[in-house]
Amino acid sequence: MATALPLVRVDGAACATPADAIALSPADAEPIARIFKALGDPTRVRLMSLIASSEGGEACICDLTAPVGLAQPTVSHHMRLLVEAGLASREQRGRWAYYRVEPAALARAAGFLRA
Amino acid sequence: MATALPLVRVDGAACATPADAIALSPADAEPIARIFKALGDPTRVRLMSLIASSEGGEACICDLTAPVGLAQPTVSHHMRLLVEAGLASREQRGRWAYYRVEPAALARAAGFLRA
Repeated sequence: MATALPLVRVDGAACATPADAIALSPADAEPIARIFKALGDPTRVRLMSLIASSEGGEACICDLTAPVGLAQPTVSHHMRLLVEAGLASREQRGRWAYYRVEPAALARAAGFLRA
Repeated sequence: MATALPLVRVDGAACATPADAIALSPADAEPIARIFKALGDPTRVRLMSLIASSEGGEACICDLTAPVGLAQPTVSHHMRLLVEAGLASREQRGRWAYYRVEPAALARAAGFLRA
């Protein structure tokens, strides 16, 4: 499970002054930004929604192309970016690739947004 | 308050099949993707964290440059992108701009990530 990185630092919130406020380190910010960057595209937002709403939380690449109106190589490209960011997992079964949403990456991103 | 757009469509989750699964419309996905895109950069992730952890939830541009180690024009550029995405608000007071985090945009993004 990913470590939650709350937007508000609980440990210093009560006594922080502007000069004291501490940003996340670059090392902590990098993986969070990578997840958000992967989600920063309308097609990828739609693909994530589509996979999460599919039966069993899993979708074949063959069922993803029509709903987003794009050719399979383009959808595969978007899915590769989501997999690389840890937001989805991919399993090859015979001719087709099947994708699932990865809850840990979603939780990490949601943890950052928690006010 | 922004409308939550859950990753899993509650209305169709019980009976969805891969062929029936419906992605968010482009119109619904666009504003969500815009928020994630603005957060898809380590410096902007750090600036959001820094502002949220500042006293009173507000930070002067003059206090944001040193923690992220960037010149003021560069920080202003990043802050403009966050303001344009609705993630932060800006108020000019005399010489300095002051920024706040906008909870509605955070809630909208978090709503999408809710599994």
